[in-house]
Amino acid sequence: MSPTRREQIRAWLILGRVPGLGPAGVDTLIRHFGDPIRILAAGRAELQATGLKPTVVDAVLGPQEAAADADLAWAEGEGVQILTRDDPGYPSLLAEVSAPPILLFVRGDPEVLKDPMLAIVGSRNPTPSGREATRELARHLAACGLTIASGLAIGIDGAAHEGALESGRTLAVLGTGPDRVYPAAHRDLARRIARNGALVTEYPPGSAPLGRNFPRRNRIISGLSLGTLVTEAALKSGSLITARYAIEQGREVFAVPGSIQSPLARGCHALIRDGAKLVESAADILEELSPLLGALVTGAGDSEERSAGKKAAGLDPEYLRLLENLGHDPVSPDDLIQRTGLPAQSIASMLLLLELEGYVSSCPGGRYCRSA
Amino acid sequence: MSPTRREQIRAWLILGRVPGLGPAGVDTLIRHFGDPIRILAAGRAELQATGLKPTVVDAVLGPQEAAADADLAWAEGEGVQILTRDDPGYPSLLAEVSAPPILLFVRGDPEVLKDPMLAIVGSRNPTPSGREATRELARHLAACGLTIASGLAIGIDGAAHEGALESGRTLAVLGTGPDRVYPAAHRDLARRIARNGALVTEYPPGSAPLGRNFPRRNRIISGLSLGTLVTEAALKSGSLITARYAIEQGREVFAVPGSIQSPLARGCHALIRDGAKLVESAADILEELSPLLGALVTGAGDSEERSAGKKAAGLDPEYLRLLENLGHDPVSPDDLIQRTGLPAQSIASMLLLLELEGYVSSCPGGRYCRSA
Repeated sequence: MSPTRREQIRAWLILGRVPGLGPAGVDTLIRHFGDPIRILAAGRAELQATGLKPTVVDAVLGPQEAAADADLAWAEGEGVQILTRDDPGYPSLLAEVSAPPILLFVRGDPEVLKDPMLAIVGSRNPTPSGREATRELARHLAACGLTIASGLAIGIDGAAHEGALESGRTLAVLGTGPDRVYPAAHRDLARRIARNGALVTEYPPGSAPLGRNFPRRNRIISGLSLGTLVTEAALKSGSLITARYAIEQGREVFAVPGSIQSPLARGCHALIRDGAKLVESAADILEELSPLLGALVTGAGDSEERSAGKKAAGLDPEYLRLLENLGHDPVSPDDLIQRTGLPAQSIASMLLLLELEGYVSSCPGGRYCRSA
Repeated sequence: MSPTRREQIRAWLILGRVPGLGPAGVDTLIRHFGDPIRILAAGRAELQATGLKPTVVDAVLGPQEAAADADLAWAEGEGVQILTRDDPGYPSLLAEVSAPPILLFVRGDPEVLKDPMLAIVGSRNPTPSGREATRELARHLAACGLTIASGLAIGIDGAAHEGALESGRTLAVLGTGPDRVYPAAHRDLARRIARNGALVTEYPPGSAPLGRNFPRRNRIISGLSLGTLVTEAALKSGSLITARYAIEQGREVFAVPGSIQSPLARGCHALIRDGAKLVESAADILEELSPLLGALVTGAGDSEERSAGKKAAGLDPEYLRLLENLGHDPVSPDDLIQRTGLPAQSIASMLLLLELEGYVSSCPGGRYCRSA
């Protein structure tokens, strides 16, 4: 890491620790000063000219350096990455939302944040069948290359992470600092997520599991994801907050119906009444997300060029490399890893996207061939 | 009954028995000849000029008289009423649908056909909880003055009739002649329905429970009703046929969600995906139907006059009589029966409509008072 980059991250960390500033306040300052180092070099008069409240200006001028230095040293020691908003690795879907976190602490593989994600959230006290349906949906969807985002809570969140770990990757968004696991019962689960995915948080080391953190944290879960699935939830529950964020962020909302006798179906039924897609199986979600996944694949291409005919021309270079190594004879993913040199975990989600876009077909024995 | 009216009914019965003619064919003939007696007086050349197929013209000229006379004699002997399409007692909502039955045999109280109705239909093999939820919804809705229409089948239909009988009235639409009860296991239920509602059918006496009758019969169940509620149904079931008729007829469709593990929730979930209202409780239905019930109450009024301000001016005379006998002191329905001379069963549904329209409020002890 170049010293300059380290200085920048340190500046973001300092801003992140300014009480009362928050992502929206940082946005205001970035608009005035351009980057975090310039913000911290500004004097009181310049800061006041931005329109920030005097108490917040005092806080920006206050002493956050020591804590930020400690955060940085801790993260380096732990191998925890810090993705600031100006980092190319900062997740693009999250960058689109209102007041995105100014930085994320990432324990595990930061590459996971580039995967297409689906959030699965729900009650902390699910029914046995709700828990099982969640685990099975997560397992199926993760096998199809969707990384499952959730909140590491007991109940539905835990079932979603567990199901995803059986067949793919998962991401936990914390309401605590990156040095804590809450709830403690999920310590082992958190370790396994760090190995097959990542744990992320916007809260600096030492942040306790304060009640107010969790609703705010939910905007990150939905904001990272193409859509949010609620499998069991009471009315007035945190899961409905996540679903409301998803709606505000323009993302898909999915809900699993249940018995009218079950209070844990009420939240899902309310979402369905408000327009959420009713989900009976993983296929219902894949069908709905397939156009969005397509947009991710071809997002970088020029739209005129894409509509002009040669669809494959809009694909990213890695997808083209994968396609070039696929023929009409079925090939196993293992062979594709050897042929392309692409990492195994990328290949699973790339094959999903290509299949949903109609470039490749899955064949018996878990193998793939070109469709066209 | 005047001899002329008897002759007319006989003519409708004859037309009803013409093989291959059906309600749509009768419509064609009525447009040409004006009434059923004139149709039967027409010669071959006149009938052919209507564009009917020659085999159908032969059938109209054929011998149906003896069977129609037997139907008439049977109905008179049994106290079964025959409501032809030109009878003022023919249900007005059913008259609006495509190819309404040309006549209905009615065992029980024909006044029931003037009630606001809700159809409740579903699987012949429901789950215990589906059966119980159906019974409870029917009981609650019948108590609110909605007459529950269904098909007398075992399973959900039976539960709907049973629930309605606990608190109000119900109507069974048969796929057989009025002289049969199918299934035989519902013989006692049919007797109780005839005492607290009615059994109706378009099929003449002697008609067997042919498979093809039941899907056609379903258009009557939905056609009589403001809306159709499906509580449990498989995909590709008769209940979905009834719901499809309801949609074609411009009526409301309601469906109860269930576990994604239950094959009997699939039909309901398919309906919800297609726009049916998701129902968790009777209140969800009452809320949706309240404007329609209002239209029934004020249907006869002149719209300009109604929008001019005096809402109550648009009410039917019997509703006005009821309102005039209600003050701001709560009154029991029994007192209202005495004061107005209106029948007890009418008063329950009239009070529901007035309550939904905001004219009256229900008070503790099952009493009512004026709202405004």
